[in-house]
Amino acid sequence: MTGNRAVVYQGPGQVEVREGDYPTYEMKDGPGVNKANVGRRTPHGAILKTVATNICGSDQHMVRGRTTAPQGLVLGHEITGEVVDTGPDVEFIKVGDICSVPFNISCGRCRNCKERATGVCLNVNPDRPGSAYGYVDMGGWVGGQAEYVMVPYADWNLLKFPDRDQAMEKILDLAMLTDIFPTGYHGCVSAGVTTGSTVYIAGAGPVGLAAATSAFLLGAAVVIVGDLNEERLAQARSFGCETVDVSQGDPVEQVQQILGRDAPAIGQPLVDSAVDAVGFEARGHGQNAQTEMPATVLNSLMDLTRAGGAIGVPGLYVTGDPGGVDDAAKHGSLSIRLGLGWAKSHSFVTGQCPVMKYNRALMMAILHDRVQIAKNVNATPIPLDEAPRGYQEFDQGAARKYVIDPHGMIGSRAG
Amino acid sequence: MTGNRAVVYQGPGQVEVREGDYPTYEMKDGPGVNKANVGRRTPHGAILKTVATNICGSDQHMVRGRTTAPQGLVLGHEITGEVVDTGPDVEFIKVGDICSVPFNISCGRCRNCKERATGVCLNVNPDRPGSAYGYVDMGGWVGGQAEYVMVPYADWNLLKFPDRDQAMEKILDLAMLTDIFPTGYHGCVSAGVTTGSTVYIAGAGPVGLAAATSAFLLGAAVVIVGDLNEERLAQARSFGCETVDVSQGDPVEQVQQILGRDAPAIGQPLVDSAVDAVGFEARGHGQNAQTEMPATVLNSLMDLTRAGGAIGVPGLYVTGDPGGVDDAAKHGSLSIRLGLGWAKSHSFVTGQCPVMKYNRALMMAILHDRVQIAKNVNATPIPLDEAPRGYQEFDQGAARKYVIDPHGMIGSRAG
Amino acid sequence: MTGNRAVVYQGPGQVEVREGDYPTYEMKDGPGVNKANVGRRTPHGAILKTVATNICGSDQHMVRGRTTAPQGLVLGHEITGEVVDTGPDVEFIKVGDICSVPFNISCGRCRNCKERATGVCLNVNPDRPGSAYGYVDMGGWVGGQAEYVMVPYADWNLLKFPDRDQAMEKILDLAMLTDIFPTGYHGCVSAGVTTGSTVYIAGAGPVGLAAATSAFLLGAAVVIVGDLNEERLAQARSFGCETVDVSQGDPVEQVQQILGRDAPAIGQPLVDSAVDAVGFEARGHGQNAQTEMPATVLNSLMDLTRAGGAIGVPGLYVTGDPGGVDDAAKHGSLSIRLGLGWAKSHSFVTGQCPVMKYNRALMMAILHDRVQIAKNVNATPIPLDEAPRGYQEFDQGAARKYVIDPHGMIGSRAG
Amino acid sequence: MTGNRAVVYQGPGQVEVREGDYPTYEMKDGPGVNKANVGRRTPHGAILKTVATNICGSDQHMVRGRTTAPQGLVLGHEITGEVVDTGPDVEFIKVGDICSVPFNISCGRCRNCKERATGVCLNVNPDRPGSAYGYVDMGGWVGGQAEYVMVPYADWNLLKFPDRDQAMEKILDLAMLTDIFPTGYHGCVSAGVTTGSTVYIAGAGPVGLAAATSAFLLGAAVVIVGDLNEERLAQARSFGCETVDVSQGDPVEQVQQILGRDAPAIGQPLVDSAVDAVGFEARGHGQNAQTEMPATVLNSLMDLTRAGGAIGVPGLYVTGDPGGVDDAAKHGSLSIRLGLGWAKSHSFVTGQCPVMKYNRALMMAILHDRVQIAKNVNATPIPLDEAPRGYQEFDQGAARKYVIDPHGMIGSRAG
Repeated sequence: MTGNRAVVYQGPGQVEVREGDYPTYEMKDGPGVNKANVGRRTPHGAILKTVATNICGSDQHMVRGRTTAPQGLVLGHEITGEVVDTGPDVEFIKVGDICSVPFNISCGRCRNCKERATGVCLNVNPDRPGSAYGYVDMGGWVGGQAEYVMVPYADWNLLKFPDRDQAMEKILDLAMLTDIFPTGYHGCVSAGVTTGSTVYIAGAGPVGLAAATSAFLLGAAVVIVGDLNEERLAQARSFGCETVDVSQGDPVEQVQQILGRDAPAIGQPLVDSAVDAVGFEARGHGQNAQTEMPATVLNSLMDLTRAGGAIGVPGLYVTGDPGGVDDAAKHGSLSIRLGLGWAKSHSFVTGQCPVMKYNRALMMAILHDRVQIAKNVNATPIPLDEAPRGYQEFDQGAARKYVIDPHGMIGSRAG
Repeated sequence: MTGNRAVVYQGPGQVEVREGDYPTYEMKDGPGVNKANVGRRTPHGAILKTVATNICGSDQHMVRGRTTAPQGLVLGHEITGEVVDTGPDVEFIKVGDICSVPFNISCGRCRNCKERATGVCLNVNPDRPGSAYGYVDMGGWVGGQAEYVMVPYADWNLLKFPDRDQAMEKILDLAMLTDIFPTGYHGCVSAGVTTGSTVYIAGAGPVGLAAATSAFLLGAAVVIVGDLNEERLAQARSFGCETVDVSQGDPVEQVQQILGRDAPAIGQPLVDSAVDAVGFEARGHGQNAQTEMPATVLNSLMDLTRAGGAIGVPGLYVTGDPGGVDDAAKHGSLSIRLGLGWAKSHSFVTGQCPVMKYNRALMMAILHDRVQIAKNVNATPIPLDEAPRGYQEFDQGAARKYVIDPHGMIGSRAG
Repeated sequence: MTGNRAVVYQGPGQVEVREGDYPTYEMKDGPGVNKANVGRRTPHGAILKTVATNICGSDQHMVRGRTTAPQGLVLGHEITGEVVDTGPDVEFIKVGDICSVPFNISCGRCRNCKERATGVCLNVNPDRPGSAYGYVDMGGWVGGQAEYVMVPYADWNLLKFPDRDQAMEKILDLAMLTDIFPTGYHGCVSAGVTTGSTVYIAGAGPVGLAAATSAFLLGAAVVIVGDLNEERLAQARSFGCETVDVSQGDPVEQVQQILGRDAPAIGQPLVDSAVDAVGFEARGHGQNAQTEMPATVLNSLMDLTRAGGAIGVPGLYVTGDPGGVDDAAKHGSLSIRLGLGWAKSHSFVTGQCPVMKYNRALMMAILHDRVQIAKNVNATPIPLDEAPRGYQEFDQGAARKYVIDPHGMIGSRAG
Repeated sequence: MTGNRAVVYQGPGQVEVREGDYPTYEMKDGPGVNKANVGRRTPHGAILKTVATNICGSDQHMVRGRTTAPQGLVLGHEITGEVVDTGPDVEFIKVGDICSVPFNISCGRCRNCKERATGVCLNVNPDRPGSAYGYVDMGGWVGGQAEYVMVPYADWNLLKFPDRDQAMEKILDLAMLTDIFPTGYHGCVSAGVTTGSTVYIAGAGPVGLAAATSAFLLGAAVVIVGDLNEERLAQARSFGCETVDVSQGDPVEQVQQILGRDAPAIGQPLVDSAVDAVGFEARGHGQNAQTEMPATVLNSLMDLTRAGGAIGVPGLYVTGDPGGVDDAAKHGSLSIRLGLGWAKSHSFVTGQCPVMKYNRALMMAILHDRVQIAKNVNATPIPLDEAPRGYQEFDQGAARKYVIDPHGMIGSRAG
């Protein structure tokens, strides 16, 4: 038995690495743990030595104080690790397996899991359907930005990589399977992206870049990424995206210039599919680029998507936001131009990505060199002790995806 | 050649039957005709003697003055008729065929039509994708609440009934194929209704009742209809629906009482699928039942639909509403609890129903006695001259679907 | 602890009720048990007191000696029961729950299960993907035509009925959820049956009647059932099917007469969808009605399905048949008119029904009175001791679905 | 008016370039013209100056005498051209447009076309659903291996390229849109190919190479192509395929060696998806490599596809084959190991590719440089006069796709 150093939320803007408890197969009381989960036994769980554990944009919502996350919460839901122990009910996962952990915890036994809707599992969060590691209001499962972490329902949740050496060679790519790669892919699938599509991705953060990568993987003809951070737009251009700087104004005109010849019979050219990879902390366009305007992205996407097109919304929208710009926003209500979307027969797909629906396929694409996700999102390994710096730089808009490497297993492999 | 008496919009609250022009294969200037369409030749068209032409709830938006519909507009987009002449390019439709006319006009030659998205055809409305007969901002195609009407692209648009006598026997049912039956069915399909589903339909007007009928046809286990008009709720109960009187308060509690035993692992029982058959002129619930609150229905549906469920939105939302309750509503913006829908991974499908995707299948169900749509929506034939009365009674909440019978071809058949 | 009387295969044509072992959470050696499964522990299992356990047509293949089933095999894979004990790893299923057991055993942890392909689970049968209780070459799981049976992976496999009393009131209907109702439904779904479809079902045995019932539930306009057993055809007519007596000759002409008016532009009317509910022991048509001709059904279905239609093949075809009519048939090869199917762009979906994909939805339809499956298949309860008679009568073509009632829990409820 | 030199079938093994009639908007009697089509007017047609017109493997069936094609038949169904005249009913296609012509002729007005099943259009071939230019038993539409050709229902059938200059720059790629690229893509879609799939393509002729190209475009992880022609296998390797030489024996073992680590829980690794790009003139494997064995490919695909996988069958199977190896084959019957496929829950999708379902999307992929189809199939332009040589070399197994260039419009552009 050993200790377990972990990244802990200590209040708005404060993240620290602290010593914590080594995982067991029973949930203990602690910051953010749902009372109904205290004492819950997990003989179906496995303990993983964390090989890679990424900082996510949705962690930033908590760290910026835009949620009710309690002090002392161990963060981290993007976990890749090596199995070092298995509970008595685990049958197929073995010690030594290198595995990806879907960020959404699910039981594999409820109606929703059986229907592949693992993002809204009914059995893991006493508050509401759906859960995640190290996240506010998600039941209290201990986060994985730590040396070790317990994964419940291990036979169901873990995706085992076929070969250990092969996995470690591509570990930075494979580390993206736990959240952002499937999330970006789900956004594109939800938006109907397929061979020959024209696609607009709002947001050039890691999820936006993962969505753009996914759009190409799905065969898109044109992938346009919009953001107001030039460094992130440059990152998007590095793998073939067109880009739109929304600080220069409404993106519609720029999108039409890019699409050029592909105009429909009436009106200007518009994209087939759009993905919201920004969510509720969106800022305005043009001269409003410094102002939070939470409905900007969705309203803009309806504008620049063609009639008959579709919109995927993997970007997070919340039911309560203490820092919301107005009373409506504080309760998760936004002023949406629904009439515009209706006139164009748009469809909207929202919610957490059900990671297990996609991670095996994306793993195969990575292992067989069909996609360079780590390079595209600029995955950057850092030691556990530098996690606070990672949080800070990421919050300031670095065009990087920070991958915490608690055991120094990645470091030497990354360029 | 003969005259052509028709129902004409004469200003808010005013509808008259007036003599108009017999149709030709060329679009003429007139109230609401898009200038770019004036003089357009339609050798691919057919002229129909109108057998049945229904009053639609979306006509009421115009008649109530909630749109910019011009005085003199010939109304009517729910048309069933007998072909009396065909243009020189018509190859397969023949004089004497009894046919259903999809309310959305489409060309059968553009990308969207080829992809079955006939609700957003690119070639019939110079203003924007999508069109309909006798409707504001839809290009200026003359409405069909008239003795005769011209249907363009007749080989593509017309659904021929296999047998004339059989068709006339079931004409009141078949008359629902032009709009409300496919629209209600599309709402259900969009909401994922299938075998065993629990379904909530907001609105017990004709589209809501058609949606409820469709839900049963799709195999739903429980169909709940909500409205504040008791007569319409009674109509819903007449064919097996459960009902909720939203004037008594928020429907969630009533829905949970109806669903009873079918509770998920967490929370109260909620429906799998919900359909908005109300649209932008929604009123509030409970004590707000007399107040227009345009986002009420959508927000309510997110509340009473389970995590992982889906919401179909066939109810009309508009881009501009001169009578909107506030500035946002006047521009088609509504305050939507998107955070709630997102937390539950809801999907939303909006827009006109692409009628041609469904009408043949629904015709087969009618002809082989699998569904009693006319009875369920209380289809009520009236002579052309009584159309103004029909508009008035319908606006006052009559639990009827008025079917104008310009040539007295239905009357003797209806009980 | 108690004994466990069970139906045992004793050789071709011989079925006996014998005393066996009460189930445990470990697989023991015995007739037909795969050596690799001997000693396998199942702490994830539950023991059920059998409420209903049906005789299936696929049992008959074994009993007729058309397989390599070993003497002493406990039969039965259509199980509905009450949980009387749960293994230590079972978390959600509780003692006292009344549950349906999908006939295909699956682990809920492999790739195929995660993709809902539970009919080809990778972890339950060391020989090949897919398994079932009490069946030859399926791994050796003890059959459920017994007083008690062990169901592995109980949280995953068992479908709990929401209410015990409600379940017992509809137990004969619910007993069909374990196999034939989902199997018939899957056949229809595979064949593209939907609202307004015209459908031909080959075979009026229980699976055929369940397919016909499913076709109506899916909204089919016309359902035609073909067989050469007049009693079974009468059963099909009892709930609205059209019927074709294939002993009178090729069914195409009879099908065309029934479809009548619904002719396409060229050729005669043909069905949209066809389902093979017969499988490899098919007999010929017309004067060949007494001769086994294993490809008859499939070739006939290509003939009577329209171009663009689809064919579902839930009927069993095997890789080895000691009683096959010729060498090719003995190895599972049949002379298929593939050129005909290709010219019509037919699709074919084969294989075991993945029951878990459908059973919850069909349960909801039963519980809410949308379907009368027990009545349609003429479900007939018999005591355990009369199982041999049930086998015999069923083999002779009785238009019944025999439901063994080992504890007398159904008897008094059935008319 | 001008003449119209064309490639004409003159008997088994004989193809000649002869002077023919310039197209008109009326079908004339001639070799292979269905009597019911003689005199049919096509005011909806357009006349194209042929820019590229490819030799297809299915043309070879006729030229090898394996069909009842009549002497004098003008060949050619893979047509890309410039519109030089339009009939009076054509509304949107304009003179000067460069267009791709789907090989399957369809009306855009029947049920099947409305459902996107343009491969089985009901209105163009009096014999049976489905048609093509210059092909036996397809209604008698004049072939397009000619200087000029008439395309009926031009607004529906023609895919206009957005920009003339851009189109001519990529004309060799775009020429593949008329048949083989969509056909290969359809084979993959039918076989369930998606992100991360492992795929086996039987046949390295142009359709097989197009299928392999499509598999990559759809995101496949591993694409394996099998053939017995080493030159064609080398062509497959040139763009990243793995290859299997079936003359060395059964492909299963070679496939398993390639797949290596990706083994399932039981058995050897097998592919997720398989595509039959060979059809009815298949030869055996290993020592049978010189013997025609028409069921070899399909039976092999069931062997090497995993349980739960799917098989696409774009390769042609016929209802009658005068040169068939036995009586069954002469009538299109093959000895299929259906029991094997059933045990693995395989699905099979057969038939002509409905080109219009895919060609626009694939055009977008070409125009935006996402795919190099011309390079991958080794598209090779030849003058019209050298068409007979092209037929001969292709029949001898050249790893080329011959593109006839009747007006010298391609020549200078190809390397």
